[in-house]
Amino acid sequence: MAEILKGMPVVKHMKESQLEQVEKLRENGVIPKLAIVRIGEKPDDLSYERGVIKRFSGVNIDVEVFEYPENISNDEFIKAFEKINNDDKIHGILLFRPFPKTIDEKQVIRVFNPAKDMDGMLNENIAKVFSGDDSGYAPCTPQAVMELLDYYNIDLTGKKVTVVGRSMVVGKPLSMMLLKKNATVTICHTRTKDLMAECKAADIVIAAAGVAKMLNGDYISDGAIVIDVGINVDNDGNLCGDVDFDSCESKASMITPVPGGIGTVTTSVLAQHVIKAAMLKV
Amino acid sequence: MAEILKGMPVVKHMKESQLEQVEKLRENGVIPKLAIVRIGEKPDDLSYERGVIKRFSGVNIDVEVFEYPENISNDEFIKAFEKINNDDKIHGILLFRPFPKTIDEKQVIRVFNPAKDMDGMLNENIAKVFSGDDSGYAPCTPQAVMELLDYYNIDLTGKKVTVVGRSMVVGKPLSMMLLKKNATVTICHTRTKDLMAECKAADIVIAAAGVAKMLNGDYISDGAIVIDVGINVDNDGNLCGDVDFDSCESKASMITPVPGGIGTVTTSVLAQHVIKAAMLKV
Repeated sequence: MAEILKGMPVVKHMKESQLEQVEKLRENGVIPKLAIVRIGEKPDDLSYERGVIKRFSGVNIDVEVFEYPENISNDEFIKAFEKINNDDKIHGILLFRPFPKTIDEKQVIRVFNPAKDMDGMLNENIAKVFSGDDSGYAPCTPQAVMELLDYYNIDLTGKKVTVVGRSMVVGKPLSMMLLKKNATVTICHTRTKDLMAECKAADIVIAAAGVAKMLNGDYISDGAIVIDVGINVDNDGNLCGDVDFDSCESKASMITPVPGGIGTVTTSVLAQHVIKAAMLKV
Repeated sequence: MAEILKGMPVVKHMKESQLEQVEKLRENGVIPKLAIVRIGEKPDDLSYERGVIKRFSGVNIDVEVFEYPENISNDEFIKAFEKINNDDKIHGILLFRPFPKTIDEKQVIRVFNPAKDMDGMLNENIAKVFSGDDSGYAPCTPQAVMELLDYYNIDLTGKKVTVVGRSMVVGKPLSMMLLKKNATVTICHTRTKDLMAECKAADIVIAAAGVAKMLNGDYISDGAIVIDVGINVDNDGNLCGDVDFDSCESKASMITPVPGGIGTVTTSVLAQHVIKAAMLKV
């Protein structure tokens, strides 16, 4: 049976140093603050928002939610967003996407200050992830994977890692982060010919394809480490990952659960980003 | 014996369409023009510069060389560079790096207009390569690989491609370009544990490690395609690639030579970039 790599111990570990960092910031008169900018009320957004507010309250970081109706005009939204963006008391912004069609995303991106882009969506931050420059902000989910691997002392140097998924929010940036840690990285996707062989050849398999229970035990070699980034709903309405946990657990040496794995760590990474941004103000 | 994938037929093919495009531009009163900005007289720079001037004259693109002494002050250089950067008659800039230590590279990067960044060194262009957005400018060398693969009708969908090298000028951007064409990409480097196995498992091996004759026939499976991006000098003072041509040629189905392979195509890609930039002025 595999060791279960839960997210909560990683969160607790991060929380300790975050509490110290926030205390120092507050002593210096800087109250770290995140603005959440949301248009409409998508259930997924609201659920993530609640998670952020709860996690941030645990480490004494302020959160202000700016909520706009679905039918807000582009001009109105840009004006509101610019004000948030220019507010010195706000160190970071979490911006829910996709936007309604009435909003000109390119215009939003043009005004968005990369120094406040906490989920690494802007070109400046994307380029930094690509080049291995730590001065920017990476997307939170792939960084959560790296935090978890680090917490459980999983050394990546020379390891064969197969990443399933090539999205801009997980697969691609994660591949660059793994490469920086000297892993040999194979990036797979829907057009990969023999996905099973690619996964079986890996020391570490990271599933970020967005397909429920796509990888079962047949894809995993004995003793491999399995990291599940997926968050899906199965036929019974239960949360599940991209990995079929039961069949993989019997073969893997270590495996992350869903829920309670990577997803749990994501908001702690977001908190770390806000602290980093606030520290630049001291 | 492998088919030799020479660069010159690719160049000739690109030249035909480039001549047409330049003619149309000139008819519209736009004379496409590249500025080469060089500090000092490094032999490699001078050699590449001569190659650019020759290739560009063949497709009627203007080139102006701006040469500065090694001891130019930062202020002087920035002032000169800003003038070139703001010159409407100049559509693209090729900037030789690394700079002397007296030059503040960050300041140069801050003033450099991404729309004139013909070798894709700025964050905006890097991020576009990463995200698969064709509206920017990729580094010329990895794009030369893609042009050659395309010219020789080498379909990448589902192919297993091993890239040896993870540099920002070749390995990383090339991996993203291959991924966009639906290849399954493995990125190897100095810390890869079993490089031979990674190469032998590949349908296509791309060597971009910068080590003379590093990959010999033992690394290549029968019938594989071998692309050599290296440009090195061997012990006898002759140009050679990262691939030991003779031992690989007998096993591969196709192989690029050095010299006369990928390197030959690079300046044609640069010309293509200048034409693309000039077209935005019509």
